[in-house]
Amino acid sequence: MEKEISQAVIRRMPRYYRYLGEMLEEGVERISSNELSSRMNVTASQIRQDLNNFGGFGQQGYGYNVKFLYEEIGKILGLNQKHNIIVVGAGNLGQALANYVKFEKLGFVIIALFDVNPALVGKEIRGIKIHMLDELEEFLKEHEVDIAALTMPKSKADAIANRLVDSGVHAIWNFAHVDLELTEDVVVENVHLSDSLMQLSYNIVKNQKEKEKDK
Amino acid sequence: MEKEISQAVIRRMPRYYRYLGEMLEEGVERISSNELSSRMNVTASQIRQDLNNFGGFGQQGYGYNVKFLYEEIGKILGLNQKHNIIVVGAGNLGQALANYVKFEKLGFVIIALFDVNPALVGKEIRGIKIHMLDELEEFLKEHEVDIAALTMPKSKADAIANRLVDSGVHAIWNFAHVDLELTEDVVVENVHLSDSLMQLSYNIVKNQKEKEKDK
Repeated sequence: MEKEISQAVIRRMPRYYRYLGEMLEEGVERISSNELSSRMNVTASQIRQDLNNFGGFGQQGYGYNVKFLYEEIGKILGLNQKHNIIVVGAGNLGQALANYVKFEKLGFVIIALFDVNPALVGKEIRGIKIHMLDELEEFLKEHEVDIAALTMPKSKADAIANRLVDSGVHAIWNFAHVDLELTEDVVVENVHLSDSLMQLSYNIVKNQKEKEKDK
Repeated sequence: MEKEISQAVIRRMPRYYRYLGEMLEEGVERISSNELSSRMNVTASQIRQDLNNFGGFGQQGYGYNVKFLYEEIGKILGLNQKHNIIVVGAGNLGQALANYVKFEKLGFVIIALFDVNPALVGKEIRGIKIHMLDELEEFLKEHEVDIAALTMPKSKADAIANRLVDSGVHAIWNFAHVDLELTEDVVVENVHLSDSLMQLSYNIVKNQKEKEKDK
């Protein structure tokens, strides 16, 4: 029986992956959990606990082999597979996503954008074609799509998410400010920018209060 | 002594705010924690616990007054103040942020963009002017800026964050894929899109494994 790993642990994994990638670039071959701890500003015990969820990877007295750990975390995160992405909503945000070269380096390849705006017919972003939304089902029949990014207004998001799921897309990267109602076998990852701004604003107020208290 | 409220609770607050706002629009005046629970798909006890951090707001046998709770959560999140934002990096993502009308409704007003690209001199996004980055300090002397959104490449993010802090900006909305090293009195909220994609990809792999097991 595999243990269920908490999403809190998973949320920390990309950060390990990023730091290990930077160390690899610097030519670091191995690192102790203490060194990794001070670099990443988390406790060594947290690091050990996190990595123990996946079987450990460290060796007593040696620490971690950077390249090995980097590759193993990459596998855990599914980065050893290529993922084809379509972006539904080719406005500014959709175009911004299509322009991120970085995603491709991680194996996430945007293969098409979709929109309802006829002014965008036939346009391309970095060589990636913008299709009209009524071509969606046809496109999904002919192409393997692993992830759909939704960057359209929230009023349309649920309907489009359902069309995507009906056509076999089981992972949604949702930028629309709504909780999608989908079946349990669909994986959804939300990026709610307004929520993130509100959290920032909460912490600004909290900071102001603390400063006033210190006076 | 005020109790320290965990960031996990704070992360859930914008969602409450969103649901209450939708109910207000629907004309709902009051709601029990059970009804709120089934709408939001979290347990009633979680809702009570979360709100108790701020003093409760509910009345036995009555439930919650939707308008009151909406406004109180708004205050907790600092939405009763206006926040001026500048966006540093006027590429696709920066322009996408400037085009979000929704932020303004929440009191977050983007007042300027900055970039190093001379091709963008004097351009405007939705009436918001793009300035050259060397005008940053001058601009910050003349305008009250509460939040700076960083949407430039990660190699430049730390240096610019420090310039911003030196000029009195104490809240950073960071889209650059790097952990900024700033003093403790600076509030940072990260939006790491690659990390979010990796979490999605982890859950895709996990789902695949579970499906294979069920076969």
